Amino acid sequence: MSTLLLDDLLEPIRPELAQVERVTQDALADATEPLGTALRHAVSGGKQLRPALAVLAGHMMGAPLTSVYRLAAALDLLHAATLIHDDVVDDAAERRGRHTLHTVWPTGATVLAGDYLLAQSIALIADLGQPRLLQVYAGVLRAMCAGEIRQSVTAQSQSGNREEYVRRIEAKTAAFLAASAEMAGLLAGASDAQLAALDAFGRELGLAYQIVDDVLDLVGDQDRLGKPVGSDLRQGLITLPIIYHLEQAGADDPVRAVLAGQRCTAHVRAASAVICQSGAIELALTEARDHARRSQAALTTLPDNDARQVLWSLVDYALARSQ
Amino acid sequence: MSTLLLDDLLEPIRPELAQVERVTQDALADATEPLGTALRHAVSGGKQLRPALAVLAGHMMGAPLTSVYRLAAALDLLHAATLIHDDVVDDAAERRGRHTLHTVWPTGATVLAGDYLLAQSIALIADLGQPRLLQVYAGVLRAMCAGEIRQSVTAQSQSGNREEYVRRIEAKTAAFLAASAEMAGLLAGASDAQLAALDAFGRELGLAYQIVDDVLDLVGDQDRLGKPVGSDLRQGLITLPIIYHLEQAGADDPVRAVLAGQRCTAHVRAASAVICQSGAIELALTEARDHARRSQAALTTLPDNDARQVLWSLVDYALARSQ
Repeated sequence: MSTLLLDDLLEPIRPELAQVERVTQDALADATEPLGTALRHAVSGGKQLRPALAVLAGHMMGAPLTSVYRLAAALDLLHAATLIHDDVVDDAAERRGRHTLHTVWPTGATVLAGDYLLAQSIALIADLGQPRLLQVYAGVLRAMCAGEIRQSVTAQSQSGNREEYVRRIEAKTAAFLAASAEMAGLLAGASDAQLAALDAFGRELGLAYQIVDDVLDLVGDQDRLGKPVGSDLRQGLITLPIIYHLEQAGADDPVRAVLAGQRCTAHVRAASAVICQSGAIELALTEARDHARRSQAALTTLPDNDARQVLWSLVDYALARSQ
Repeated sequence: MSTLLLDDLLEPIRPELAQVERVTQDALADATEPLGTALRHAVSGGKQLRPALAVLAGHMMGAPLTSVYRLAAALDLLHAATLIHDDVVDDAAERRGRHTLHTVWPTGATVLAGDYLLAQSIALIADLGQPRLLQVYAGVLRAMCAGEIRQSVTAQSQSGNREEYVRRIEAKTAAFLAASAEMAGLLAGASDAQLAALDAFGRELGLAYQIVDDVLDLVGDQDRLGKPVGSDLRQGLITLPIIYHLEQAGADDPVRAVLAGQRCTAHVRAASAVICQSGAIELALTEARDHARRSQAALTTLPDNDARQVLWSLVDYALARSQ
């Protein structure tokens, strides 16, 4: 499979993503300085995967365009808000190749900036006038927080089993993509069966996407990733390929040494190499492919049109990044 | 005027506040440990002023009881969420006489715990099914964040003028009380004129309440306040009595010394005493009384019943705390 480029895939909806961007920027127009500049910085430069998903799902289901742009902007703002808070949680210095707000502002002000984005995101949802949208929205926010807290407070006691991993990435990534697709369906007045299919499509896509992300962290190219290989391992974050590897690794395996605390670059590189040479990567990718297939299976029950075709390709893209 | 006790005032609605408390606790029931315990701790022990306001305003306007309890719980959760984030902002060690979550958990997990409460608060609002409720809700969240950020990022350059002060306490306290009253009116299907009166009632009450709070910080009893006299001054926070004092103070006034950085206890005490001996306290209280009168004036345009009488007394209470 040739490498799919997200930019190429999203080319047909580029003018619409620009519309979404305008709604997002309008939502920040009232913020006084220095808040305004900080927020405009925080919401720009992303891959726009979530707004794209909402726009495409909206098209597929025939939702009114203005509402779709507003929803997509609300999701983009929510995503930016959670990233700002996550950077505080992880004490991260860089995001999207730029300094995080967290490194420039005091922690407290950074937290409040995230809250402000959340407030503006909620305001956009409120304007859409559908209480059920808000229920889905509140559900995904709760799932993300609960998942992050579990990870943050229980990091020391991570058992590294597959079930726990899936629960974590479901909360971190999949719930958001599921909600994005479902909310677009709500705007179109989709049936309950269609809403369930949209949810399943987004959720399975999210699981596939995150597993591939976690694989790329081990096998990827440092320059393309924008972070050193084995970052997760270095942070003690036990991802699916690591779990598969540990299930068949001996007591003196270099991966265990890293997880036990030997986190210098040489140890992390050695451990990453061992995982790549085991069958763990292939096992994880097989699982990602299963999720991708289930995501596309859900799509087949939804209206067949150009937008659906792009969504189908987005699922392929989620996998192809690993090739 | 004899001292009014909030507990006595709220006695008639004590069983209803217990109902609100049940809704709040139910909203936290799904939180896994250690999150659940932390959140139950965070939402208990407050004065319940905001839920009481929503319940009383709901009664006054004839809103359905179940909806009112849900709204009151949502407001209580929102308030608890903002307090958790504020404690991170202020690096506060104690709140309501107990350790803050912030001192027990990592900063990041604490931020996420606030986000979780916010998510549950939004979910309750969503269940009420009125988009306009959410618009008011989003507005108050945005106002509070923007106000706190302004205070946090521009703390060094505080000019200490009255206009800036009012803007700050409006965002910090008054907007929330205004929204609490207005949202209760929305549940009752109140007219636009009534909604405006409810907003004005809550906003003016909030301004009066916060000014008295700021006066008590200087003239109050350390044991009753639960914090040392002059805490605001020590933090360089320029409140209304301090502003009035500075408007007529000489260049060598002890208050200027504290604001310039001499923040040991002896200096803060001397400066607090000087403010109390000037006419600044009385000027600030006069302003609080003006706001209280405007709050009660707004009430007179609303349905006359027992609940309105308690709200009227709540305004008296806001002032009487200072006597």
